[in-house]
Amino acid sequence: MRSPEPNLNGGLRTPSPRPRIQSQFHSTVSVQKNRQFNILILIFRFAAFCFSLASAIFMFANFHVSESDSVRWYHFDAFRFVAIAAAIVALYSLFEVGASVWEISRGATVFPELVQVWFDFSHDQVFAYMLLSAVSAGTALARTLRERGTYTVNNAFCVQSDISVALGFAGFMFLGFSSLLSGFRVVCFILNGSRFHM
Amino acid sequence: MRSPEPNLNGGLRTPSPRPRIQSQFHSTVSVQKNRQFNILILIFRFAAFCFSLASAIFMFANFHVSESDSVRWYHFDAFRFVAIAAAIVALYSLFEVGASVWEISRGATVFPELVQVWFDFSHDQVFAYMLLSAVSAGTALARTLRERGTYTVNNAFCVQSDISVALGFAGFMFLGFSSLLSGFRVVCFILNGSRFHM
Repeated sequence: MRSPEPNLNGGLRTPSPRPRIQSQFHSTVSVQKNRQFNILILIFRFAAFCFSLASAIFMFANFHVSESDSVRWYHFDAFRFVAIAAAIVALYSLFEVGASVWEISRGATVFPELVQVWFDFSHDQVFAYMLLSAVSAGTALARTLRERGTYTVNNAFCVQSDISVALGFAGFMFLGFSSLLSGFRVVCFILNGSRFHM
Repeated sequence: MRSPEPNLNGGLRTPSPRPRIQSQFHSTVSVQKNRQFNILILIFRFAAFCFSLASAIFMFANFHVSESDSVRWYHFDAFRFVAIAAAIVALYSLFEVGASVWEISRGATVFPELVQVWFDFSHDQVFAYMLLSAVSAGTALARTLRERGTYTVNNAFCVQSDISVALGFAGFMFLGFSSLLSGFRVVCFILNGSRFHM
Protein backbone atom coordinates (compact mmCIF):
# COMPACT_ATOMS: atom_id res chain seq x y z
CA MET A 1 0.00 0.00 0.00
CA ARG A 2 1.48 3.35 -1.03
CA SER A 3 1.50 5.99 1.63
CA PRO A 4 0.62 9.51 0.44
CA GLU A 5 3.52 11.96 0.05
CA PRO A 6 3.95 14.38 2.94
CA ASN A 7 2.28 17.71 2.28
CA LEU A 8 4.71 20.47 3.21
CA ASN A 9 2.26 23.31 2.68
CA GLY A 10 0.34 22.50 5.84
CA GLY A 11 -2.89 21.32 4.28
CA LEU A 12 -3.11 23.79 1.38
CA ARG A 13 -3.80 21.53 -1.58
CA THR A 14 -4.36 24.09 -4.33
CA PRO A 15 -1.28 24.29 -6.56
CA SER A 16 -1.61 28.09 -7.07
CA PRO A 17 -2.21 29.68 -3.63
CA ARG A 18 -4.65 32.59 -3.69
CA PRO A 19 -2.84 35.79 -2.54
CA ARG A 20 -5.72 37.12 -0.43
CA ILE A 21 -5.97 34.00 1.70
CA GLN A 22 -2.19 33.78 2.01
CA SER A 23 -1.88 37.37 3.18
CA GLN A 24 -4.69 36.85 5.70
CA PHE A 25 -2.91 33.71 6.90
CA HIS A 26 0.38 35.63 7.21
CA SER A 27 -1.21 38.50 9.08
CA THR A 28 -2.85 36.09 11.55
CA VAL A 29 0.50 34.36 12.15
CA SER A 30 2.14 37.79 12.55
CA VAL A 31 -0.42 38.92 15.14
CA GLN A 32 0.00 35.65 17.06
CA LYS A 33 3.81 35.85 17.03
CA ASN A 34 3.64 39.48 18.09
CA ARG A 35 1.37 38.47 20.98
CA GLN A 36 3.85 35.80 22.13
CA PHE A 37 6.69 38.32 21.87
CA ASN A 38 4.72 40.86 23.95
CA ILE A 39 3.99 38.23 26.59
CA LEU A 40 7.73 37.44 26.78
CA ILE A 41 8.50 41.15 27.23
CA LEU A 42 5.77 41.35 29.89
CA ILE A 43 7.34 38.47 31.83
CA PHE A 44 10.81 40.06 31.76
CA ARG A 45 9.41 43.46 32.77
CA PHE A 46 7.42 41.93 35.61
CA ALA A 47 10.52 40.08 36.85
CA ALA A 48 12.56 43.31 36.65
CA PHE A 49 9.81 45.08 38.61
CA CYS A 50 9.69 42.42 41.35
CA PHE A 51 13.46 42.23 41.82
CA SER A 52 14.10 45.98 41.77
CA LEU A 53 11.16 46.65 44.12
CA ALA A 54 12.44 43.98 46.52
CA SER A 55 15.94 45.48 46.28
CA ALA A 56 14.62 48.98 47.05
CA ILE A 57 12.49 47.75 49.98
CA PHE A 58 15.39 45.74 51.47
CA MET A 59 17.63 48.82 51.24
CA PHE A 60 15.08 51.34 52.54
CA ALA A 61 14.40 49.06 55.52
CA ASN A 62 18.10 48.60 56.21
CA PHE A 63 18.72 50.25 59.56
CA HIS A 64 19.85 48.60 62.74
CA VAL A 65 19.85 50.55 65.96
CA SER A 66 21.38 49.05 69.06
CA GLU A 67 22.50 50.58 72.38
CA SER A 68 26.15 50.69 71.21
CA ASP A 69 25.77 52.17 67.73
CA SER A 70 23.26 52.77 64.97
CA VAL A 71 23.78 52.24 61.27
CA ARG A 72 21.35 53.36 58.62
CA TRP A 73 21.46 52.91 54.86
CA TYR A 74 21.42 56.65 54.17
CA HIS A 75 24.73 57.11 55.98
CA PHE A 76 26.44 55.60 52.93
CA ASP A 77 26.53 57.20 49.45
CA ALA A 78 26.57 53.91 47.56
CA PHE A 79 23.61 52.49 49.48
CA ARG A 80 21.62 55.67 48.83
CA PHE A 81 22.44 55.22 45.14
CA VAL A 82 21.27 51.57 45.22
CA ALA A 83 18.00 52.42 47.00
CA ILE A 84 17.12 55.30 44.66
CA ALA A 85 18.19 53.55 41.44
CA ALA A 86 16.23 50.40 42.38
CA ALA A 87 13.16 52.51 43.25
CA ILE A 88 13.35 54.38 39.91
CA VAL A 89 13.73 51.11 37.98
CA ALA A 90 10.79 49.61 39.92
CA LEU A 91 8.57 52.60 39.01
CA TYR A 92 9.65 52.50 35.37
CA SER A 93 9.10 48.72 35.18
CA LEU A 94 5.65 49.10 36.71
CA PHE A 95 4.76 51.64 34.03
CA GLU A 96 6.13 49.32 31.32
CA VAL A 97 4.19 46.35 32.72
CA GLY A 98 1.06 48.50 32.43
CA ALA A 99 1.98 49.50 28.87
CA SER A 100 2.58 45.85 27.94
CA VAL A 101 -0.75 44.72 29.39
CA TRP A 102 -2.47 47.57 27.52
CA GLU A 103 -0.76 46.53 24.28
CA ILE A 104 -1.63 42.84 24.68
CA SER A 105 -5.27 43.55 25.58
CA ARG A 106 -6.00 46.35 23.07
CA GLY A 107 -3.52 45.57 20.31
CA ALA A 108 -2.23 49.16 20.24
CA THR A 109 0.63 50.96 21.99
CA VAL A 110 0.04 53.62 24.68
CA PHE A 111 2.05 56.29 22.84
CA PRO A 112 2.26 56.45 19.03
CA GLU A 113 4.23 53.46 17.80
CA LEU A 114 7.36 55.40 16.77
CA VAL A 115 7.57 57.16 20.15
CA GLN A 116 6.83 53.94 22.06
CA VAL A 117 9.58 51.76 20.54
CA TRP A 118 12.26 54.45 20.93
CA PHE A 119 11.04 55.41 24.43
CA ASP A 120 11.23 51.78 25.59
CA PHE A 121 14.65 51.12 24.12
CA SER A 122 16.34 54.34 25.28
CA HIS A 123 14.95 54.12 28.82
CA ASP A 124 15.86 50.44 29.08
CA GLN A 125 19.43 51.25 28.11
CA VAL A 126 19.85 54.25 30.41
CA PHE A 127 18.21 52.59 33.43
CA ALA A 128 20.16 49.36 32.90
CA TYR A 129 23.44 51.32 33.00
CA MET A 130 22.23 53.26 36.05
CA LEU A 131 21.17 50.15 37.99
CA LEU A 132 24.40 48.30 37.13
CA SER A 133 26.46 51.28 38.26
CA ALA A 134 24.50 51.46 41.55
CA VAL A 135 24.78 47.78 42.41
CA SER A 136 28.49 47.72 41.53
CA ALA A 137 29.11 50.64 43.87
CA GLY A 138 26.94 48.91 46.48
CA THR A 139 28.92 45.68 46.15
CA ALA A 140 32.23 47.50 46.61
CA LEU A 141 30.94 49.32 49.69
CA ALA A 142 29.43 46.16 51.22
CA ARG A 143 32.73 44.31 50.78
CA THR A 144 34.70 47.16 52.33
CA LEU A 145 32.33 47.38 55.30
CA ARG A 146 32.69 43.66 55.86
CA GLU A 147 36.52 43.81 55.74
CA ARG A 148 36.55 46.88 57.97
CA GLY A 149 35.34 44.78 60.89
CA THR A 150 33.45 47.63 62.58
CA TYR A 151 30.23 46.02 61.48
CA THR A 152 30.76 42.57 62.90
CA VAL A 153 28.43 43.71 65.67
CA ASN A 154 25.95 44.65 62.99
CA ASN A 155 26.12 41.55 60.86
CA ALA A 156 22.40 41.88 60.03
CA PHE A 157 23.10 45.23 58.35
CA CYS A 158 25.78 43.66 56.15
CA VAL A 159 23.60 40.68 55.23
CA GLN A 160 20.64 42.89 54.38
CA SER A 161 22.84 45.11 52.19
CA ASP A 162 24.17 42.05 50.38
CA ILE A 163 20.65 40.77 49.75
CA SER A 164 19.53 44.15 48.41
CA VAL A 165 22.54 44.36 46.07
CA ALA A 166 22.00 40.80 44.84
CA LEU A 167 18.32 41.51 44.13
CA GLY A 168 19.43 44.66 42.28
CA PHE A 169 21.74 42.55 40.07
CA ALA A 170 18.83 40.22 39.25
CA GLY A 171 16.71 43.27 38.38
CA PHE A 172 19.50 44.55 36.12
CA MET A 173 19.66 41.16 34.37
CA PHE A 174 15.95 41.16 33.53
CA LEU A 175 16.08 44.82 32.50
CA GLY A 176 18.98 43.88 30.20
CA PHE A 177 16.88 41.11 28.60
CA SER A 178 14.00 43.58 28.13
CA SER A 179 16.45 46.00 26.57
CA LEU A 180 17.52 43.33 24.03
CA LEU A 181 13.88 42.67 23.10
CA SER A 182 13.00 46.36 22.84
CA GLY A 183 16.13 46.89 20.71
CA PHE A 184 14.82 44.12 18.46
CA ARG A 185 11.49 45.95 18.24
CA VAL A 186 13.29 49.16 17.21
CA VAL A 187 15.06 47.24 14.42
CA CYS A 188 11.70 45.74 13.33
CA PHE A 189 10.16 49.19 13.32
CA ILE A 190 12.96 50.61 11.18
CA LEU A 191 12.76 47.59 8.85
CA ASN A 192 8.97 47.33 8.38
CA GLY A 193 7.59 50.61 9.66
CA SER A 194 5.75 48.59 12.31
CA ARG A 195 6.66 46.87 15.57
CA PHE A 196 5.40 43.55 14.14
CA HIS A 197 8.36 41.38 13.30
CA MET A 198 7.08 39.52 10.26
CA MET B 1 16.63 91.00 -15.91
CA ARG B 2 15.09 87.72 -14.73
CA SER B 3 17.30 85.60 -12.56
CA PRO B 4 17.16 81.87 -13.32
CA GLU B 5 15.15 79.74 -10.89
CA PRO B 6 17.22 77.88 -8.32
CA ASN B 7 17.99 74.37 -9.45
CA LEU B 8 17.29 71.99 -6.54
CA ASN B 9 18.66 68.94 -8.28
CA GLY B 10 22.26 70.03 -7.84
CA GLY B 11 23.13 70.72 -11.48
CA LEU B 12 21.30 67.81 -13.09
CA ARG B 13 19.34 69.54 -15.88
CA THR B 14 17.89 66.55 -17.71
CA PRO B 15 14.20 66.15 -16.85
CA SER B 16 14.43 62.33 -16.87
CA PRO B 17 17.61 61.35 -14.93
CA ARG B 18 19.42 58.39 -16.37
CA PRO B 19 19.42 55.56 -13.80
CA ARG B 20 23.01 54.44 -14.43
CA ILE B 21 24.52 57.88 -13.74
CA GLN B 22 22.25 58.38 -10.75
CA SER B 23 23.21 55.04 -9.24
CA GLN B 24 26.92 55.81 -9.79
CA PHE B 25 26.40 59.20 -8.15
CA HIS B 26 24.58 57.57 -5.22
CA SER B 27 27.24 54.93 -4.76
CA THR B 28 30.00 57.59 -4.72
CA VAL B 29 28.08 59.60 -2.10
CA SER B 30 27.51 56.39 -0.14
CA VAL B 31 31.22 55.50 -0.14
CA GLN B 32 32.14 59.04 0.97
CA LYS B 33 29.55 59.09 3.77
CA ASN B 34 30.68 55.65 4.88
CA ARG B 35 34.26 56.91 5.01
CA GLN B 36 33.26 59.88 7.19
CA PHE B 37 31.29 57.53 9.44
CA ASN B 38 34.31 55.21 9.76
CA ILE B 39 36.57 58.14 10.62
CA LEU B 40 34.13 59.18 13.36
CA ILE B 41 34.16 55.63 14.77
CA LEU B 42 37.97 55.64 14.57
CA ILE B 43 38.13 58.88 16.59
CA PHE B 44 35.82 57.51 19.31
CA ARG B 45 37.72 54.23 19.46
CA PHE B 46 41.06 56.00 19.69
CA ALA B 47 39.73 58.20 22.52
CA ALA B 48 38.40 55.11 24.33
CA PHE B 49 41.82 53.47 23.89
CA CYS B 50 43.74 56.48 25.24
CA PHE B 51 41.51 56.98 28.28
CA SER B 52 41.28 53.32 29.24
CA LEU B 53 45.02 52.81 28.76
CA ALA B 54 45.74 55.85 30.94
CA SER B 55 43.28 54.56 33.54
CA ALA B 56 44.96 51.13 33.59
CA ILE B 57 48.46 52.64 33.82
CA PHE B 58 47.47 54.99 36.65
CA MET B 59 45.96 52.07 38.57
CA PHE B 60 48.82 49.61 37.94
CA ALA B 61 51.31 52.26 39.12
CA ASN B 62 49.25 53.04 42.21
CA PHE B 63 51.40 51.94 45.13
CA HIS B 64 52.87 54.07 47.85
CA VAL B 65 55.35 52.61 50.26
CA SER B 66 56.45 54.63 53.26
CA GLU B 67 58.23 53.64 56.48
CA SER B 68 54.92 53.59 58.40
CA ASP B 69 52.72 51.60 56.02
CA SER B 70 52.44 50.46 52.41
CA VAL B 71 49.35 50.52 50.24
CA ARG B 72 49.13 48.86 46.87
CA TRP B 73 46.28 48.78 44.36
CA TYR B 74 46.02 45.00 44.42
CA HIS B 75 45.14 45.01 48.11
CA PHE B 76 41.63 46.17 47.10
CA ASP B 77 39.14 44.11 45.07
CA ALA B 78 37.50 47.07 43.37
CA PHE B 79 40.83 48.58 42.27
CA ARG B 80 41.92 45.22 40.85
CA PHE B 81 38.64 45.17 38.91
CA VAL B 82 39.27 48.72 37.59
CA ALA B 83 42.83 47.94 36.51
CA ILE B 84 41.93 44.70 34.73
CA ALA B 85 38.73 46.03 33.11
CA ALA B 86 40.54 49.15 31.85
CA ALA B 87 43.40 47.01 30.49
CA ILE B 88 40.95 44.70 28.66
CA VAL B 89 39.08 47.67 27.17
CA ALA B 90 42.40 49.25 26.11
CA LEU B 91 43.43 46.03 24.32
CA TYR B 92 40.04 45.67 22.65
CA SER B 93 40.02 49.34 21.59
CA LEU B 94 43.53 48.97 20.14
CA PHE B 95 42.33 46.02 18.06
CA GLU B 96 39.28 48.00 16.93
CA VAL B 97 41.43 51.01 16.01
CA GLY B 98 43.49 48.66 13.84
CA ALA B 99 40.31 47.21 12.29
CA SER B 100 39.00 50.74 11.58
CA VAL B 101 42.26 51.84 9.95
CA TRP B 102 42.24 48.64 7.86
CA GLU B 103 38.65 49.32 6.80
CA ILE B 104 39.30 52.96 5.89
CA SER B 105 42.47 52.18 3.93
CA ARG B 106 41.32 49.00 2.14
CA GLY B 107 37.55 49.52 2.00
CA ALA B 108 36.87 46.05 3.41
CA THR B 109 36.31 44.70 6.92
CA VAL B 110 38.84 42.41 8.66
CA PHE B 111 36.29 39.64 9.30
CA PRO B 112 33.38 38.94 6.92
CA GLU B 113 30.94 41.85 7.10
CA LEU B 114 28.19 39.98 8.98
CA VAL B 115 30.63 38.74 11.64
CA GLN B 116 32.32 42.14 11.92
CA VAL B 117 29.20 44.25 12.62
CA TRP B 118 27.84 41.83 15.21
CA PHE B 119 31.29 41.30 16.79
CA ASP B 120 31.77 45.08 17.17
CA PHE B 121 28.32 45.74 18.61
CA SER B 122 28.23 42.83 21.06
CA HIS B 123 31.74 43.46 22.38
CA ASP B 124 31.08 47.20 22.70
CA GLN B 125 27.99 46.48 24.78
CA VAL B 126 29.58 43.88 27.04
CA PHE B 127 32.80 45.84 27.62
CA ALA B 128 30.88 49.08 28.24
CA TYR B 129 28.84 47.36 30.97
CA MET B 130 32.01 45.80 32.41
CA LEU B 131 33.96 49.09 32.50
CA LEU B 132 31.03 50.99 34.00
CA SER B 133 30.64 48.34 36.69
CA ALA B 134 34.38 48.51 37.48
CA VAL B 135 34.60 52.29 37.74
CA SER B 136 31.41 52.46 39.85
CA ALA B 137 32.88 49.94 42.28
CA GLY B 138 36.17 51.88 42.20
CA THR B 139 34.39 55.15 42.97
CA ALA B 140 32.58 53.63 45.95
CA LEU B 141 35.82 52.20 47.32
CA ALA B 142 37.77 55.43 46.78
CA ARG B 143 35.09 57.40 48.65
CA THR B 144 35.06 54.91 51.53
CA LEU B 145 38.86 54.98 51.80
CA ARG B 146 38.79 58.77 51.93
CA GLU B 147 36.12 58.83 54.67
CA ARG B 148 37.91 56.09 56.60
CA GLY B 149 40.71 58.51 57.39
CA THR B 150 43.41 55.80 57.52
CA TYR B 151 44.72 57.07 54.23
CA THR B 152 45.21 60.71 55.08
CA VAL B 153 48.90 59.80 55.37
CA ASN B 154 48.65 58.36 51.89
CA ASN B 155 46.81 61.14 50.18
CA ALA B 156 48.73 60.47 46.95
CA PHE B 157 47.24 56.98 46.79
CA CYS B 158 43.70 58.38 47.04
CA VAL B 159 44.33 61.06 44.42
CA GLN B 160 45.85 58.57 42.00
CA SER B 161 42.90 56.19 42.48
CA ASP B 162 40.47 59.05 41.80
CA ILE B 163 42.32 60.00 38.61
CA SER B 164 42.33 56.40 37.39
CA VAL B 165 38.58 56.05 38.05
CA ALA B 166 37.82 59.37 36.32
CA LEU B 167 39.85 58.31 33.26
CA GLY B 168 37.94 55.02 33.30
CA PHE B 169 34.62 56.94 33.20
CA ALA B 170 35.87 58.94 30.20
CA GLY B 171 36.87 55.67 28.51
CA PHE B 172 33.39 54.25 29.21
CA MET B 173 31.78 57.36 27.67
CA PHE B 174 33.69 57.01 24.40
CA LEU B 175 33.08 53.25 24.34
CA GLY B 176 29.37 54.04 24.78
CA PHE B 177 29.47 56.41 21.78
CA SER B 178 31.23 53.71 19.71
CA SER B 179 28.56 51.26 20.82
CA LEU B 180 25.82 53.59 19.52
CA LEU B 181 27.57 53.88 16.15
CA SER B 182 28.22 50.14 15.86
CA GLY B 183 24.56 49.52 16.80
CA PHE B 184 23.62 51.84 13.93
CA ARG B 185 25.85 49.78 11.62
CA VAL B 186 24.08 46.58 12.71
CA VAL B 187 20.71 48.19 11.86
CA CYS B 188 22.10 49.30 8.47
CA PHE B 189 23.38 45.79 7.84
CA ILE B 190 19.98 44.26 8.65
CA LEU B 191 18.25 46.89 6.50
CA ASN B 192 20.47 46.87 3.41
CA GLY B 193 22.53 43.70 3.73
CA SER B 194 25.59 45.95 3.87
CA ARG B 195 27.24 48.16 6.48
CA PHE B 196 26.88 51.17 4.13
CA HIS B 197 24.13 53.41 5.43
CA MET B 198 22.59 54.70 2.19
